[in-house]
Amino acid sequence: MIDQFKGMKPSRRAFLRGAAAAGVAVAGTKAAAEGEAQILNKQPWNQALGAGVDESPYGMPSKFEAGVVRKNVPWLTAESISSINFTPIHELDGIITPNGLCFERHHGGAAEIDPAEHRIMINGLVDRELVFTMEDLMRFPRENHVYFLECAANSGMEWRGAQLNGCQFTHGMIHNVMYTGVPLRLLLEEAGVKTEGKWLLAEGADASGMTRSIPMEKALDDCLVAFKMNGEALRAEQGYPVRLVVPGWEGNMWIKWLRRLEVGDQPWHHREETSKYTDLLGDGQARRFTWEMDAKSVITSPSPQKPITHGKGPLVITGLAWSGRGTIPRVDITIDGGINWMQARMDGPSLDKSMHRFYYEIDWDGAPLLLQSRAHDSTGYVQPTKDQLRSVRGLNSIYHNNGIQTWAVNSDGVAENVEIS
Amino acid sequence: MIDQFKGMKPSRRAFLRGAAAAGVAVAGTKAAAEGEAQILNKQPWNQALGAGVDESPYGMPSKFEAGVVRKNVPWLTAESISSINFTPIHELDGIITPNGLCFERHHGGAAEIDPAEHRIMINGLVDRELVFTMEDLMRFPRENHVYFLECAANSGMEWRGAQLNGCQFTHGMIHNVMYTGVPLRLLLEEAGVKTEGKWLLAEGADASGMTRSIPMEKALDDCLVAFKMNGEALRAEQGYPVRLVVPGWEGNMWIKWLRRLEVGDQPWHHREETSKYTDLLGDGQARRFTWEMDAKSVITSPSPQKPITHGKGPLVITGLAWSGRGTIPRVDITIDGGINWMQARMDGPSLDKSMHRFYYEIDWDGAPLLLQSRAHDSTGYVQPTKDQLRSVRGLNSIYHNNGIQTWAVNSDGVAENVEIS
Repeated sequence: MIDQFKGMKPSRRAFLRGAAAAGVAVAGTKAAAEGEAQILNKQPWNQALGAGVDESPYGMPSKFEAGVVRKNVPWLTAESISSINFTPIHELDGIITPNGLCFERHHGGAAEIDPAEHRIMINGLVDRELVFTMEDLMRFPRENHVYFLECAANSGMEWRGAQLNGCQFTHGMIHNVMYTGVPLRLLLEEAGVKTEGKWLLAEGADASGMTRSIPMEKALDDCLVAFKMNGEALRAEQGYPVRLVVPGWEGNMWIKWLRRLEVGDQPWHHREETSKYTDLLGDGQARRFTWEMDAKSVITSPSPQKPITHGKGPLVITGLAWSGRGTIPRVDITIDGGINWMQARMDGPSLDKSMHRFYYEIDWDGAPLLLQSRAHDSTGYVQPTKDQLRSVRGLNSIYHNNGIQTWAVNSDGVAENVEIS
Repeated sequence: MIDQFKGMKPSRRAFLRGAAAAGVAVAGTKAAAEGEAQILNKQPWNQALGAGVDESPYGMPSKFEAGVVRKNVPWLTAESISSINFTPIHELDGIITPNGLCFERHHGGAAEIDPAEHRIMINGLVDRELVFTMEDLMRFPRENHVYFLECAANSGMEWRGAQLNGCQFTHGMIHNVMYTGVPLRLLLEEAGVKTEGKWLLAEGADASGMTRSIPMEKALDDCLVAFKMNGEALRAEQGYPVRLVVPGWEGNMWIKWLRRLEVGDQPWHHREETSKYTDLLGDGQARRFTWEMDAKSVITSPSPQKPITHGKGPLVITGLAWSGRGTIPRVDITIDGGINWMQARMDGPSLDKSMHRFYYEIDWDGAPLLLQSRAHDSTGYVQPTKDQLRSVRGLNSIYHNNGIQTWAVNSDGVAENVEIS
């Protein structure tokens, strides 16, 4: 796997020579290194015993990571029970989002449900209406998949150039975890979907009574009725004890606190699929049922919340890419605002409808950068510019902005959110 | 992906019919389902608004999951600063271990290190001795991999039949996370390993000053100098801010709080590779340098801490398998103590030197079960019985017990740790 670096780009050896120079805080002679070793031997952490194992039955991050948290934008919503916070994607690496940092979006607050009292009902156009306890659900065959969940409104404030200063706020309504759940198809097979049953209404048990219509074809394809994320139980804010997983489709359809699945012959046209989660075009017409999340990417470092602090020389540029239609075989990077594009290095497992991590290493000369990334998905689709999206959809949109994001980095390493055309 | 169930085993349809019968708490008539719906509409969680998004910048599990925690065995060690706790693998699913539940093993307590003050030195038989800050480290190319980490002493108490009652205690000194780190090879290339440099000593910055010798071939192969786990910074108890990742090899070598890498021409024969972490055979000779973790598996549910509570009918048997030599293409299951073996269903991504999840679904008739699992790894190696291990290694061993585990389940669903021959 390390061999993948070989011949990656002509500047490889030059890069490493640069890294060596950068890496040497105190070095070059044996005496200097030994001097450093003396200092290292007198740190508090090797002069006294550390914490015992019985102090943290459920562990928490180091106190030095106290700034790595979900953050909200207080002015964005009137009430915290119908609000949003954002995943600190600028602080993360790899593709797994830890459960404690997965963004939240509630419409009536995060319900706290006793799993012993919870039920899931299947009704409507079925041969037999069924009600399941959580224990009943656990008796069906399970699957495990890593999927991204992106809110349709992720990057929504960028449509009209709000330019929030940091990818946590521009792109942080996303997370990527491994789900354990029962294929929805198995539950529907138990109930027996009637021939005229072409749609499914999924309903949540929280105070908002969230509902969404889902076409039967998707329901029978890859949806899961999930009860675990990253190995452990769902978090309350993610729908504990059970949520719907609708891979690749907008997050609002992934009904949390799932309590009912009704089979019908047509969509329900409820609030969250008419007045909300539709895309109002420039001519006043609305695009509806735009469920699938288009390919998208963002550079997470450097970025406004993650400036370059080490000066010239070796610089790791990294980011995330994803597509609701499959995998991400390729991401292009530009450091000059789109004059030249280079292929990033894709890293780690490439999983269907999951985040993908990319890197691009350069020897930074200290000149200002105009950083952009452009995702290609496995269908051949290429991430568009914001202007291309606006030319088709106008400026009324809130949802489904998958346009290319630009960070301007100055020679001090400070980055900001800009638009270029 | 759901298609993988098709034709999985002849009893598939029979199983689903069984599941239907089990799944119906209140069902069969529309009226009954509507009665249940009335009850569901009067739960506290849909009568009042839930928690707002600003109440948990770093999220925690539901209060109903308070029992899902790491646990120690108080009599096992004299002091908590040199002790162990265990991952609750019986409560988990999929293959990712959440960071808050990864088992801990300290030799001098968990150090709490300020990353700004931390240094990593490379010295010994190198062309140039180097000292890196954490920021320097972040300027090298990174990789992401999911690897299991298993303590060599995992299942150690089972050698002589201690029969701890639960897989958390018999097999819970293991976790499986996605690491982000710099290939160790790149750092060693920077320093320039001299021709005679055949071994590496890795040293921790904690009060125990943990050291282990690692052959250069492994160091240059797939080891990582890692700073993130499951996307976020390492936890203090896992070596924050930086640890060595030695894929597939015993956990004690994955030096936490890594501060020094010394290149030498022979192993150092330090305490943790002579008096500890060696395998004393029956004839008084010790096996040394038994780094690679052999293929192993365990059924996590049902198990002593996870009895069957739902009675006869559909039952999901599940567990974990792993190998330090590659992947796990196959796990066999027996429910009658080894008279008949069936192939389990492997689920989820199959990654090199990672945990693998398996399932085996049966229609339980309520008769007692003698459950075992047997892993096959990608080299063709098959997990042995405990008696086979004892016949070769005697009874002095503590480490490297990868023998087949047996759970006896009685007709009430209660499971216990037993040995059968």
